[in-house]
Amino acid sequence: MLLARRLETIKPFRVMEIMERAAELEASGRAVIHMEVGEPDFPVCKSIADAGSRAISQGRTKYTSATGLPELRHTIADYYRQQGVVVDPERIVVTAGGSGGLLLLAAALLNPGDTLLVTDPGYPCNEVFAEAVGAHVTRVPVSAETRFQPSWDDLARHWTDSVRGVLIASPANPTGTMVPRRDLQAIVNGVTERGFLIVDEIYQGLVRERPEYRTVLELSSSAIVLQSFSKYFGMTGWRLGWIVVPHMMVESIRKLAQNLFISPSTVAQCAAMAAFDSEAMAEHERRRRVFCERMDFLQSGLEQLGLPIHARPDGAFYLYADVTSTGMTASEFCRRLLESHCVAVTPGLDFGSNNAENYVRMACTVDVPQMEKVIERIGLMLGHDRR
Amino acid sequence: MLLARRLETIKPFRVMEIMERAAELEASGRAVIHMEVGEPDFPVCKSIADAGSRAISQGRTKYTSATGLPELRHTIADYYRQQGVVVDPERIVVTAGGSGGLLLLAAALLNPGDTLLVTDPGYPCNEVFAEAVGAHVTRVPVSAETRFQPSWDDLARHWTDSVRGVLIASPANPTGTMVPRRDLQAIVNGVTERGFLIVDEIYQGLVRERPEYRTVLELSSSAIVLQSFSKYFGMTGWRLGWIVVPHMMVESIRKLAQNLFISPSTVAQCAAMAAFDSEAMAEHERRRRVFCERMDFLQSGLEQLGLPIHARPDGAFYLYADVTSTGMTASEFCRRLLESHCVAVTPGLDFGSNNAENYVRMACTVDVPQMEKVIERIGLMLGHDRR
Repeated sequence: MLLARRLETIKPFRVMEIMERAAELEASGRAVIHMEVGEPDFPVCKSIADAGSRAISQGRTKYTSATGLPELRHTIADYYRQQGVVVDPERIVVTAGGSGGLLLLAAALLNPGDTLLVTDPGYPCNEVFAEAVGAHVTRVPVSAETRFQPSWDDLARHWTDSVRGVLIASPANPTGTMVPRRDLQAIVNGVTERGFLIVDEIYQGLVRERPEYRTVLELSSSAIVLQSFSKYFGMTGWRLGWIVVPHMMVESIRKLAQNLFISPSTVAQCAAMAAFDSEAMAEHERRRRVFCERMDFLQSGLEQLGLPIHARPDGAFYLYADVTSTGMTASEFCRRLLESHCVAVTPGLDFGSNNAENYVRMACTVDVPQMEKVIERIGLMLGHDRR
Repeated sequence: MLLARRLETIKPFRVMEIMERAAELEASGRAVIHMEVGEPDFPVCKSIADAGSRAISQGRTKYTSATGLPELRHTIADYYRQQGVVVDPERIVVTAGGSGGLLLLAAALLNPGDTLLVTDPGYPCNEVFAEAVGAHVTRVPVSAETRFQPSWDDLARHWTDSVRGVLIASPANPTGTMVPRRDLQAIVNGVTERGFLIVDEIYQGLVRERPEYRTVLELSSSAIVLQSFSKYFGMTGWRLGWIVVPHMMVESIRKLAQNLFISPSTVAQCAAMAAFDSEAMAEHERRRRVFCERMDFLQSGLEQLGLPIHARPDGAFYLYADVTSTGMTASEFCRRLLESHCVAVTPGLDFGSNNAENYVRMACTVDVPQMEKVIERIGLMLGHDRR
């Protein structure tokens, strides 16, 4: 029995190895500060939890429509309307997490042998979804000079015959930067003639005050949006998300969803209905501000240690810190910080290969007192206490 | 923007069209008897529901390990042990429903251009999972003469150079028949030399008294098992299942699961822990017996109407009834039964093309009094009342 060739190209998820090593340290009695996983540290909102429990006690645990409960799709459309964008609920498909959305889009848009343009650094799993359907990615390098986001020219330069479309993220993982509105418009215009544009808006909502735009849907009705209840709405383990697709894709996505998923989790869908009520939204907004404050605090501390953040994040809850001044590779930095100082962060290699050993990603998923300890321990590791 | 070619080969799910038409009839005030969907009609067991609610109130809604909670994997291993089979929990991977398991297996085992052998009739989505990863299926026709199950010779005859493995189901959908133990052993032996064997055991547990075997794992340690909490455990909308893979596949499946799913639903996993306790198991067994009684009742009624069941099911909750004596195609039979008599059943075309217009699948997901009405209405439709 032989395994499929795609398994040779799928790299191990380094963050998982870090989590496992952290668990070993914890099992041996040491306390680890966790800044490695992209998971908010807050408990699920009470109104969401209550709605989930209510669904169970009411027996709402049967299959739903493959594209999600109609009332949830309408609620999501209302959420967009409140942001000034009109989206037909027919175009909204509820998915099994952002992951489920990525699979549906890859299966709907990529043939074996096709190429998808992604950024480097970027979300590491994007490549695996392309490989899963027999396609490949071309990684477009993005650097600190352009705040780790591509221009249309960057994308156009990599657009070979096999390229079918582009997947960008705004705000992005691991850098938290948004594509500036003017660049996004140029990308929308440029891609329209050539293929598809998917914008990963999984960190939508988790942004600083008054972003230039809330969603690519303000600029385009043919752009595809990938969304999730995991980050802004804080529902990671429930595994729920949604996609917004152009009308011409709706029937195809529905067929794929019926066959590949049957339906998303019913309990999660019922719980998510409460994610948009005023109590929950107030809590999401409070948490958004906390993440922004944490990012600012950590950035300031890291920069005092000589670890600059070249692009101040517009959103999400990550800092992508340059560790070259330490003389260590990012992998070595992460290993030593965990082994000697019990702080878990993720090396840049998890997000691509473009200058990846210069950067580490730190998730601001611990509170400020914990981050003070992290700053202190990095200082210790770097010998700053001796100055 | 062009869609992927695989969408041209994915046929519409006819049962979904039937469900939609049934919903229209219901919206117009008519009561429809639903025997079209493969979903048990019982509410979720109380102990499972309680465990789900408890997980939510305890805040167990974060990501888990990609392969599932260790305690759930151990509990599943205990379930096998009680059936006399020792399975290392390391080989058990918890998945987002049987659907999630099928995706992981397709991605791990099939390259673009490869072929998977499946049966016709069989579960219609199997083909879509193969197409999703760029592979294809060859449908091996199985007929009433062999109780709709293939022998090793049937499979070997279709084993061309591009075939990488076989997916069979026991008990099967839509027929409910099991592969006889001797034939299963021959298939295990035959496949071992050539590729992989996946046995869909999603209906395991839902069988008559004293089946010849409980799982292919009794016969083989290299066979792959696909399982689900949806049928025997009655947890459809929770979207949870598991697979059992050989040791040599575990690391690859883990990598794929990390990338393609992050993790299965945490609430569903916590709820499923209670699916094996004595209270829940007693309820599952009670329901198992009810399904068997319903199948016997319906078979007897259909045969009196001249609609024979050529292979008495060994399990599941379906009857695959031969409607050729009516002079109608199965599609016409289903359409008329729904439009004129408000009974929803599924035409054979949903399960393949092999004599498919001779058969309809009826899910015994309504109680005996409802089935009495169904028998009466089919009799009316066929003019038996005039005899």
